[in-house]
Amino acid sequence: MKKETCFLISGGTYADLPEDLPKEGYVIACDRGWEHARRLGLEPDRIVGDFDSSPRPEGASAPVDTFPSRKDDTDTMLAARLAADMGFTDVVIACSFGGRLDHTVANLQTAAFLAERGMRVRLCGADTDAWVLRGKTDPAAELVLPRREGRSLSVFSMTDRCEGVSIRGASYECEEETLTNGFPLGVSNVWAAGEVRISVKSGVLLVIESALQAGEHI
Amino acid sequence: MKKETCFLISGGTYADLPEDLPKEGYVIACDRGWEHARRLGLEPDRIVGDFDSSPRPEGASAPVDTFPSRKDDTDTMLAARLAADMGFTDVVIACSFGGRLDHTVANLQTAAFLAERGMRVRLCGADTDAWVLRGKTDPAAELVLPRREGRSLSVFSMTDRCEGVSIRGASYECEEETLTNGFPLGVSNVWAAGEVRISVKSGVLLVIESALQAGEHI
Repeated sequence: MKKETCFLISGGTYADLPEDLPKEGYVIACDRGWEHARRLGLEPDRIVGDFDSSPRPEGASAPVDTFPSRKDDTDTMLAARLAADMGFTDVVIACSFGGRLDHTVANLQTAAFLAERGMRVRLCGADTDAWVLRGKTDPAAELVLPRREGRSLSVFSMTDRCEGVSIRGASYECEEETLTNGFPLGVSNVWAAGEVRISVKSGVLLVIESALQAGEHI
Repeated sequence: MKKETCFLISGGTYADLPEDLPKEGYVIACDRGWEHARRLGLEPDRIVGDFDSSPRPEGASAPVDTFPSRKDDTDTMLAARLAADMGFTDVVIACSFGGRLDHTVANLQTAAFLAERGMRVRLCGADTDAWVLRGKTDPAAELVLPRREGRSLSVFSMTDRCEGVSIRGASYECEEETLTNGFPLGVSNVWAAGEVRISVKSGVLLVIESALQAGEHI
């Protein structure tokens, strides 16, 4: 059976995988993400990295692609290029967030790189899930998010503009709106119904689902 | 004396202000940022927010602009509009990071909104500083960052493209390069000389200076 989902295990803060993800896929551990993969109980199919600030994966059964520390790409971007070349339809970037802000931004842009090549991309972290959608006019390309209590939803344009943004089933709905990357309009939305449906016709849209923090309510 | 710098005190994780910032300016506290302003020893000139998840600022001497909880803008974006209307040349968004990822992304996009209107924008958080630069052909518009040990520098395009990106005085230098928002090329750079000089000719560039974490080296 062809594995359609590729898991990139990044080196952010460790986070368990959400339960609704596929239970199998091709696993690429990115540098220190190798330790996270072990803790997640995932056996990597490939390991990539420069291992300049984390131990080399001794005893791993997967091939290890060691890159020089002096390189242009982040370790997760190296893995993303591999996933793009291998033709997966879905990519999950696990342990994406936490730690240095520049690594978090780099992972979001890596997700945009994959989305622009037509892949469905999800990023997972502790208390945070995110999806990066490339604009499509196909109604079936909607992102459908089942209601989750204690979570908020925010949408952002990752490109200069996102046209035709529709959000249905949420407290703040919109139909065919334009978002820009200098105008954070879509922060702290919440479910009004059993599911929220989000779509975008052009541009790259970032959807972030966050756990509300102590004392916060919508 | 005209106060040229506006401090927006946001509601991220509390962080002391860097020492190299101006010692005075106009202070707008954004919702729960009011408590951070007190801890920073800053007396707000204005307070804005919806106070839906933080206590109303009792006993504050500044005017309090209370907005309905159901609104399009984040509290920090409300304050940014005020800063833009008042004509400041420099804006510092303090306590920008930490907490929910969507708030962090919203603050970065708020900074882009201000930069696009010609303001110099700096964001500060614990272990992290960031600058958002709008493309300019004026050589004097360079961002000059004095060497700091134990810190890394990363640059990202916040617009579809940044043209004419030059980084001088760093381990990875570039001259008139193009960056895109789906290609995190500029992560984990480091000083090679006493200062790094960064400039961009068009687009909006994000520069993040991060403290290296335990065990990390460049």
